[in-house]
Formats: sequence, C-alpha cells, structure tokens
Amino acid sequence: VIAPVRIALIGAGRIGHVHLRSILSHPETCELAVVVDPYQPAIDDIRESFGVDQTSTDLAAVFDDPTIEGVVIAASTETHASSIMEAARSGKAAFCEKPIALDLEATDTALAAVAAAGTMLQIGFQRRFDTGYARAKADIVEGRLGNIEMVRDAMRDPAPPPPTYLAKSGGLFRDMTIHNFDCVRWLKGDDPVEVFAMASALTGDEIRDIGDVDTSVITMKFPDGSLASIENSRRSGFGYDVRTEVFGSEGAMLIGESRQTSVRWLDGKGVHEDHRYFFIERFAPAYEKELLSFVSNIRSGNQPVVTGADGRAAMVLAVAAEESLKRRQPVNPVDVASFAHTEAAHAQS
Amino acid sequence: VIAPVRIALIGAGRIGHVHLRSILSHPETCELAVVVDPYQPAIDDIRESFGVDQTSTDLAAVFDDPTIEGVVIAASTETHASSIMEAARSGKAAFCEKPIALDLEATDTALAAVAAAGTMLQIGFQRRFDTGYARAKADIVEGRLGNIEMVRDAMRDPAPPPPTYLAKSGGLFRDMTIHNFDCVRWLKGDDPVEVFAMASALTGDEIRDIGDVDTSVITMKFPDGSLASIENSRRSGFGYDVRTEVFGSEGAMLIGESRQTSVRWLDGKGVHEDHRYFFIERFAPAYEKELLSFVSNIRSGNQPVVTGADGRAAMVLAVAAEESLKRRQPVNPVDVASFAHTEAAHAQS
Amino acid sequence: VIAPVRIALIGAGRIGHVHLRSILSHPETCELAVVVDPYQPAIDDIRESFGVDQTSTDLAAVFDDPTIEGVVIAASTETHASSIMEAARSGKAAFCEKPIALDLEATDTALAAVAAAGTMLQIGFQRRFDTGYARAKADIVEGRLGNIEMVRDAMRDPAPPPPTYLAKSGGLFRDMTIHNFDCVRWLKGDDPVEVFAMASALTGDEIRDIGDVDTSVITMKFPDGSLASIENSRRSGFGYDVRTEVFGSEGAMLIGESRQTSVRWLDGKGVHEDHRYFFIERFAPAYEKELLSFVSNIRSGNQPVVTGADGRAAMVLAVAAEESLKRRQPVNPVDVASFAHTEAAHAQS
Amino acid sequence: VIAPVRIALIGAGRIGHVHLRSILSHPETCELAVVVDPYQPAIDDIRESFGVDQTSTDLAAVFDDPTIEGVVIAASTETHASSIMEAARSGKAAFCEKPIALDLEATDTALAAVAAAGTMLQIGFQRRFDTGYARAKADIVEGRLGNIEMVRDAMRDPAPPPPTYLAKSGGLFRDMTIHNFDCVRWLKGDDPVEVFAMASALTGDEIRDIGDVDTSVITMKFPDGSLASIENSRRSGFGYDVRTEVFGSEGAMLIGESRQTSVRWLDGKGVHEDHRYFFIERFAPAYEKELLSFVSNIRSGNQPVVTGADGRAAMVLAVAAEESLKRRQPVNPVDVASFAHTEAAHAQS
Repeated sequence: VIAPVRIALIGAGRIGHVHLRSILSHPETCELAVVVDPYQPAIDDIRESFGVDQTSTDLAAVFDDPTIEGVVIAASTETHASSIMEAARSGKAAFCEKPIALDLEATDTALAAVAAAGTMLQIGFQRRFDTGYARAKADIVEGRLGNIEMVRDAMRDPAPPPPTYLAKSGGLFRDMTIHNFDCVRWLKGDDPVEVFAMASALTGDEIRDIGDVDTSVITMKFPDGSLASIENSRRSGFGYDVRTEVFGSEGAMLIGESRQTSVRWLDGKGVHEDHRYFFIERFAPAYEKELLSFVSNIRSGNQPVVTGADGRAAMVLAVAAEESLKRRQPVNPVDVASFAHTEAAHAQS
Repeated sequence: VIAPVRIALIGAGRIGHVHLRSILSHPETCELAVVVDPYQPAIDDIRESFGVDQTSTDLAAVFDDPTIEGVVIAASTETHASSIMEAARSGKAAFCEKPIALDLEATDTALAAVAAAGTMLQIGFQRRFDTGYARAKADIVEGRLGNIEMVRDAMRDPAPPPPTYLAKSGGLFRDMTIHNFDCVRWLKGDDPVEVFAMASALTGDEIRDIGDVDTSVITMKFPDGSLASIENSRRSGFGYDVRTEVFGSEGAMLIGESRQTSVRWLDGKGVHEDHRYFFIERFAPAYEKELLSFVSNIRSGNQPVVTGADGRAAMVLAVAAEESLKRRQPVNPVDVASFAHTEAAHAQS
Repeated sequence: VIAPVRIALIGAGRIGHVHLRSILSHPETCELAVVVDPYQPAIDDIRESFGVDQTSTDLAAVFDDPTIEGVVIAASTETHASSIMEAARSGKAAFCEKPIALDLEATDTALAAVAAAGTMLQIGFQRRFDTGYARAKADIVEGRLGNIEMVRDAMRDPAPPPPTYLAKSGGLFRDMTIHNFDCVRWLKGDDPVEVFAMASALTGDEIRDIGDVDTSVITMKFPDGSLASIENSRRSGFGYDVRTEVFGSEGAMLIGESRQTSVRWLDGKGVHEDHRYFFIERFAPAYEKELLSFVSNIRSGNQPVVTGADGRAAMVLAVAAEESLKRRQPVNPVDVASFAHTEAAHAQS
Repeated sequence: VIAPVRIALIGAGRIGHVHLRSILSHPETCELAVVVDPYQPAIDDIRESFGVDQTSTDLAAVFDDPTIEGVVIAASTETHASSIMEAARSGKAAFCEKPIALDLEATDTALAAVAAAGTMLQIGFQRRFDTGYARAKADIVEGRLGNIEMVRDAMRDPAPPPPTYLAKSGGLFRDMTIHNFDCVRWLKGDDPVEVFAMASALTGDEIRDIGDVDTSVITMKFPDGSLASIENSRRSGFGYDVRTEVFGSEGAMLIGESRQTSVRWLDGKGVHEDHRYFFIERFAPAYEKELLSFVSNIRSGNQPVVTGADGRAAMVLAVAAEESLKRRQPVNPVDVASFAHTEAAHAQS
C-alpha cells in the first residue's frame, strides 16, 4: 500500500469546504495535514462542520512542515501568488484556484518562482474535469468533429456578487471570463490572434460606478481562421448558466446541463423544470476529480492537466479583452502581453 | 361572403411551390390568378404537380391584369426590385422574398416607387410568423423578460449552396445573415449603433475564391448598451440550425427546434434523435401564415408585419458588417448608410 | 395530367373541417364534389369559412352522383355504418373516422357490405400517418429494435368531453382506447391473446353515473410472450398526452412530442415550456397525409394502410377489455368475439 | 462537537464499496469501526483501494464490540436476516440492503427480533433519497398534483445478471420489482388492494429454465380507485432505465434522467446523447444521502425514512404478484399475506 499524500488546505471559505470534503473522502490517496485560515470563525466552523482537529490560523503550519507534500490554495485572490511562491520555495506542489494573480506581472513572478523551484503547479479550471467537457475534449482530439471552426461559450451567474467582492475581483474579464478563455483555448487547442470585446454595465449602478462591466460578448479568431464567441453576464435572472457549443467541419457538440433534479412538472400552465442556481452544485463532481488529479500527479510526477502556463494564457486573453474594450477595436493578444510572455518563458527555461 | 383576393405568383421554383400551396389551400381568402415563370419546364412542372391551368411565361399576364390585387415575388433576387416597381406602378400589393435587392441603391429605388404609388409591400422574413418566434416577440413586448440585454442568434445551413448560386448571392451577409439581422432588430425592438464582424472562408476554396466568407460571428451594440451576437455557417455538417436566445433582466428565452420526427432511439450506443435538414421543413407553417397575412392585409388595408423599411434596415446592417470586415473594426451603421436612409425617407413622405 | 379524384365530405363538424382543408389544398389530386351535413348552420359556416359553394343538407347529393369516387365520412359515430354501406352500394371508396360502429354486429354488417361490393374502405387511425409513428413502424419492420418485447402506449385528453358526447361515445374503451389498441397491434404486428383491464371513474360523478370509466390501465400479452400496456385518462390536467414507448431486444424507441412552440422560458422559478392542448394540433400533418393517402389509393387501386379489418380488430380488443373489466380477470379476445369474426370473414370471402 | 457515530460495514462487495466511501467522506458524523467480509480477497481489495486498516473476516468484530452503534449490512441477501437479528440482539441500529429476506417468514422473524429489541432498522430503498424522487414526493404531499390517480414506474437493467446471481435472487419480483413496489406505495401513500401480473421469459433460456421471468408489467389498484403500472425488464439493450410518471387530478410529474454526460453530438446521422449504463452511477448521490440519513437517525433517535415495515410491505406485494402470475388473475395482497402481517404486527406491539 502506497502512503497517502499529506495535503494542507489554505482557505476555509466556500470553495475550501469543497476541497476539504474531497480530501477527507479519499483516505486511500490523501491525508489532511492541516487547514489554515487566519479568520478564527472560519476555522471554528470547519472544526464543527467537518469534525476536523488539524487546524491553524498560521500559514507557518503549512510551509514549515516538511511532511506536507501538497498545498491547496483556496484563499482570496490577492494571497494566491505569495502562497504559490511559498509553496515553491518549500518544495511543495501547489493547487491554486484561478486566477494566479490579478495582473500579469504578479503572475509572472509567481510562475518564475515555480519554474526556479521545479515544483508542480495546477490551476483550478474545474470545467476540464467535468465529465461532459472532458468527453467533448477527448472527442475533439480524436477528430470526431473534424476541424473545429467555431466555439461558443456562455456563462452567466444568477446574480452579481456583493460590492466588496466586485471591488477586488479584477473586473469581469479577469474574474469570470477567465474560465471561458481557458475553456475555449483548451477545446480549440490553440491561442487566438484576434480578440474583440463588447461590454456594458446593465445590472445597476454598482458595477458601472467602479468602472467595471457585467454583460459582454467577446469574439476571437484563431490562426486557422476559426472563430469563437464568449458571452457573460453577472445576472441571469434564472440561475447558473454554463453552456458550450463546438462546431466542426463534420458536426457539432453541445455541452450543457441545467436541471437541478430529474423532475418535469406538467400542469395547466405548461411543462416546468427546475434549474441549477449555483456553480458549486453544477461542478461538484468536477471539483472532486480535480483535487484527486492533483493528488495523483504528486504521487506519479505527471504534469497537471491545467498548468501555470494555462492560467497565465487565460489572463493574457483577459488583458487583451480589456485592451480591446478600451481601444474599441480588435487586439492581437501578443501585442498586449508578448514581452511578459517571453520573460516568463525565460524564467521557466 | 367576401370575395377572395386574386393573387399572382412570380417564380415557379422551390419557394414558389411553397407559396403556391398556401394560395391553393385557402380558397376562402385567396384565388390563384396566374403563375408566371419564363422557364417553360418550371411551368410544366407546376401544371403537373399542382394541377394548375393558370400559368404563363410572360410577366405581362400579371401586371396587365387589373383583377389581380396581390403579387407574390419568388423569382431570383436580381428581378425582385423591378417586380416590386412594376407591382407598385400597376397598383398591386407585393409580397417579396428577401432581399429587396443586392445593394442599397436598388433597394431605395424600389422603395421609392412603392412610396410614390402608396401600395403595400411585405418582405419575406418568415421567422416572424413562426409560432415560437412570434410567441417570444409577444412575451418580450409584454415585458416577461424585463429589459432585453443580450440576443444570440445562430443560423447554419447543412451544406453550401452551389457555386452558381453563391456567385449571385451578394455574399454571406446580404444573403444569409440578413435573416438574423431582421430577427435581432425585431426582437430587440431597436437598431444597433455598433456592428463588428469576424469571418472566414473555411468550407473550401470555392467561397474563398470569389472573395466571400462562409463562417462568421457578428456582434452588435444597441443604444441602451445591450448586446447581440449572430453566428452563421454555410456548412453545419448536421442539418439546418436555427436557434435564438434572448436574455433579459428577469430571465431568458431559448427558441429552437431541431427534431424531424418525435422519435428518440435508445440502443447500446446511446440515445439518438433525427434532425431537420432543411429550412423549408422547419418553417413550413410560418411560410403559410406569412402568405395568409399578406392576403389578409390586402383585404383589411392593415400594414404588413414586415415592411419594406424592415427589409432595407436588415440590408443596411449587412453592408455595415461588410464594412466592418473590410476595416477590421466596429462600424456604426449610420456611418455606412445614412444618406440613402434619408433619401428613402424622403421618397416615402 | 391525371384528373383529380372527386371527393364528397359527409359531416361539417370539427374533424370535417380538417379533412376539407386537406381536400382543398391539393387540387392536383382531388376535387371537392360536395360537403353534406343535415345541420344548416354547419353548412353556412363551411360556406363562409372555406369559401365553398358545393354544399348540401341531403346525403343523396353524395350517393346519387356517379362522378363522385370517394366519400369522407366525418359525421357522428351512429351514422358511420350506414354511410359506409351506402358508399359500398353506390360503388364508392370510403374513408371513415373511427369507430366503424359502436358494436361488433353493426361493424360486421358494414364490413360485409363493403366486402360484397368489393369497394375500398379506409379507417381513420391517423397516428399511422404521423411522421414519428410511421418512422417507428418502419424501423421496427426493418428490425432496428430486434424482437419487440414490450409496448407502452399512453393517451390522455386534457379534459373530459361534454356529457352529451359521453352518453353516445360507447364508453372509454370503444371511444378512446380504440386508438391505442390499433397503435399497439400495428407496432407489434400481431394480435394479443390476453387482455386485462383495470379502470376507475375518478374525474367526477358524470362519468361514474353513466357506468363508464375515465382512467384505465390495460395490459396485454402476445403469442410470443411479449407484453403491452395502455394508459388512458379523460383528464390530464396539462393538455393532450400521447406518448408511445417500444422496447425490443436490441434497444427502444420513445415516440412523443408535446411542445406547442419551440420556446423555453427560464426565470427565477425554473425552466418552462408550453404543451399541446389538443389532438387536432398534434396530428394536423398526419390528418393531411391520411387524406392524401386515401385519395392516392383510389387512383392507384392500392390497399389502404388502415383497413376495415383493422378497425374491427381494435373494436374486438375494446370489447375484450370491457369483458375483462366486468369479470375482473384476463380475457382472450377470441373468446369474446370469435363468432362474429368468422361471420365477417365469411361475408368477405 | 458531537462525537461521530461508530459504524461497522458488513460486506465488502460492490455496494459495500459505495457505503464505505460515504462513511469515510463524513468524519464529522461517522467513523468507520470495521469492515467485515469472510472473503479475504475482498478485504485485501478494501485495504488497498480505500487505505483502510480496520478490517476483519469475522462478524464477531462487529457484534462483540460495544462501541459500535450502527451496522451497515451490504452482504449477500441470504445473510441479511441473521445480521439484522444479531444487530438487534446486540442493541445496534442496522441499515440493510433490500430485501430483508427472500421470504415473508424470515422477514417476519427478523422484524420481530428488531421489534423485541426496540432497535432501529432502515431498509435500502435508495430512490427515496434521490433528489428527483424526494422532490416529487414532497410535492405530492403538498398537493401540487391534487389527487394521485395513476403512477407508472419503469425499471430496466442493461443486461441480465449472471446465472449464479439469478439462482439465488428470489426471482424478478422479489429481487428487482421490490424497488418499484416500494416506490409506488411511497409516492401514492397507500397500499394496493389489487395486484395483477403479466410476465414472460424473453431474454433467453437461462431465466426460463429456472422458472423465473425477465419481462413484466404489473398493474395495481388502490382503495380510492387510483391505478399503477410497473414495467420491468432484465435486459434493456440500452442501459439502466429508471423513470416514473405520476398523474394527478391537477397535473403530472415525470421523474427520469438518463444522460451520462451533458454532451449532445450532432452529425449527419442526427443528434446523439449517451446513456447511463448502471444503477450505481444513477443513484450515487442517493446512496450517500441514504447512509448519512441512517447515521443522523442514530444520533437523533428519529425514525428512519424507510422502515422494516416498508421493506416487508414491498415483499408482500412481490409475493402477491407471484401469486397473480400463478393464478392468472388479480390478487388482493391481504389474501396472500394477511396472517403473517398480523403476526409481525403482534410481535412489534
């Protein structure tokens, strides 16, 4: 029997709970070393809700413990980069929720630290572990659709996050669209050469007042001429919307799933279904697979399915989209972020 | 009993057959005066397939007959404008398949003739008569979705038309996207102030060689900041694709229907449905309603649901999209077509 | 050009309107000779709504006219058998709505007259002309499902018919289930050897007071051991329900279609679709195909897709189901109706 | 913090694995005491696959350990009753997979032991914990459908189990239909007064040779006249089929879900989805909720959602169905099992 991997969890909030459950559910492969969160009530809640004793409010409990092999970073975004760097310096593999950081400079600094240490880093684009998306990607790779000619990726949240979150979110493209950027480039298997963004603030004054947008359509062109569109909204009015359509020369795939239960109601007003309200429900199995993949890669030494370079590339597209919005014209991402790209590549070599 | 309206049909091709069946099916409201097509084999086919004796190869049979009240123009596009003008001059109402003409100048000339004569002109955007689209529009008008914030309109043909058709089609935007332009502006109830087109020729050399495109995503912004995207492809690989999604502040509507029959097959490979292959099957009931609406408007004197101004506006957006493609930047439609617009308005006053 | 078939329509009610539209819509194959209904207001309505002059209140206008080749019998059930016999005697083909008569004796008398005259008789089980059902049957015949092992056929009306209709309907099994009996034996390609009925009157006192039932499940066994179940209700609460499932050794087929339009609404309460309310909407294209098939068979001399023997067999199963309900045990249909069967066979030979 | 409940698992097979994962995943509420299975390779597999050290091949490790509060019985059916009785005698709560035993006598003996000991017993009808079924039941209780007038419950396995399993299964009704009997009586909230079974052996000689059936339709009537039908097959040809339809006076509910992933494929042959193959995938979340409910009830002292009486009632219906099949007529369950029922009631009082 192979010894389970000792994992530390940083961040005892909503998504931290998800990862904690995954860790606890698989004693055959991983063992919880410690949960760290500076906020004592969050720790108290963890102890009560999960029956876990291994907790701390001090990050030293993670990075000073040589028995810990992997770190799951699920704290707020502004701490991601420093935790990634700490993990790299202490020789630990790191799984980090997106984004790596809110700007490319901090992203590149963190990736350079990882590259210098030669440690493993996996980024939390959980869609890639969803059975539907994973199956679609596999089919695309096998050529079932022929050449991929268009991708349409839609994501809508049920309602805008609170103002405190929005203020630190980095804006719609870095906070939300980053998932779509990853998804599209992953499904297409290439990076776009043209990005054009249209966007508005339609949900109320709060988002407009901080200079952000809440509703957007982004179009992209790839080197082979194929196209993509990404739709986002901070407020759907009906729940969490995540649907992707891939069109190839030989057919298409529609990826989507929206029902909360398997019930259809029929009455004098028609037919009714319920709808998932929140992304954590939609992607619960994907989050578990994602965490298990991280643990498995630590043991096997395999490359993660989602690398730091993937996390960076999605951020480059977010920056390009912002630039397009500012200039009101299409932008080639390499014009926006080429230098940093080279620097990161250098650091990693 | 009110006497039926005497209708002439110009054009005995595929879509002419559809309209002929609608006319013959409703003797209570309309009566076929004559079918005209200069191509004798098409006329022979009509006589055989429909058991119709009232045929001619000469347009004079239409415009010289004072008993004819309405003309259905279903011949090839390059003849539309002159038939519209002939109808106007002879005081007959005209139903004309889209587009009015392949350029704005000819469009405006035709519309000016109609305006001068004070006759009625209805344009063949049949989607507006589809029960699904009509219901969606009614719900939008009643406010069921709140403010309309995004529209996504996708249309794909199963396979590209033959080269002879393509050469005279006016290009993807004037020939195909024109349906989507009409649909989006109708559902939104407004005209966009910004149009941006990305497009490629991906289906083979034929379309590229004539300087046309076959795959496109067009994004548009409206005065209130709301957005729209239109996806087109000349070749889906799976059949005729027409789906529209409307997102409002209070919910969304998805309009679409793809099954040819009501059968689902389940076997060891999964679950299977069939898919409509062609637009005429998809919109068969809409074509019939459209024709009946035209006839009904002749008798009642009501305004048509789709006016010449609607046909022109969709063409303006097509021209704006072409301009955007050429300039590689977003275009305000009024910069492209404002003068002609004024002229037409003048002619109609 | 072949001359169109001259058709008379008997019965100017709801379903008569449907057939009249089909006749009028296809001048290439049929020509309306006359519409007969003894009820003058119904005739007046036809003249107004369809612009038809060829009307009469006297059946002699049908049977005394030697130019009439086919008769469409869409009057009330108690007149079916006599019209069938009149048609046979005057050498005319007949299309008759189900059932042929409300009892087996009258059915056999009518069939004997047809057999003696050697004329054609087609019964109005319109499902067989629905694209979904027709496709399913074709696939079954081709062996796509392997051996057919179970059929489930459900039909529910939105609300019970009025008491006057119910009193003359012949009861649930002869009036409504007869469609399902035909459908199941047609899909299976065989007649059952065992019929068991469970039924109740649940919708209110009216149906119970006349000794009828409104809710039933009938199970049947075929000679090869395969099974079928039929569900009926006079009151669904949500619209017209017609769905059939066929299970074979190699897979299954689900036949069903319920949406009125192609719209899905998404809002804070979930996802909503509309639902067809009435069978005439659901089967509109099938009714048209059914009528065209009748006309086509007159010209070609082909056997009808639905014969008088089919109409009789479904009635036998209805009688067997009633007998099962009475005895509270399963019944072999041949025990109930074998003598009459022989008689009819004799008459037809 | 409340101490977690110490749970023993008896049976390290397929369904044992499912329950083991649930236990391990929730350290806040339960703690694995021991996994017992007499088959050493099964134990070895558990140790390797789950990283669990607490294992034994001796049942004494369960019943002699006073710290164990709950026992999960997931071993083969013939051991269920004795383990239930052992658990009762040692004062432990028991969760037992269906059925309690293969005959009513053994069932009653086991239930009497539980009643005498006053311990808790929960039976493994996992559907009741499925979000769809649970939601449907809640809606029924709240009256959303009005009076329940018909239930249709279909369950099909992808392929027959191996002959060794079949020989000890107790037959189709006790092994498979027992789930449907529980589901229907639970949704209806009542027990039927009439049960009629039609069944055949169609999948091959193996099942026929042991006197069993593999394809059946069972109809039932309830005291208020409402009806139910249950369809079963050991071999669907397409995967695991579980769908339930509930019809009430005010509408209906369709419960079902069949897709393995969220992908729809569109190509030249139509539209394709995948289909769940196995019940464990379909009900994975329900199994977890079921186990957590058991643990929670131990701590709270609440009655289980599925009682021993429920397990027994489903078995009574299975026996009644067998009797109906033998007699070829409908059977009132109380005629079959009333005496035993009284005895059990006596023992429990």
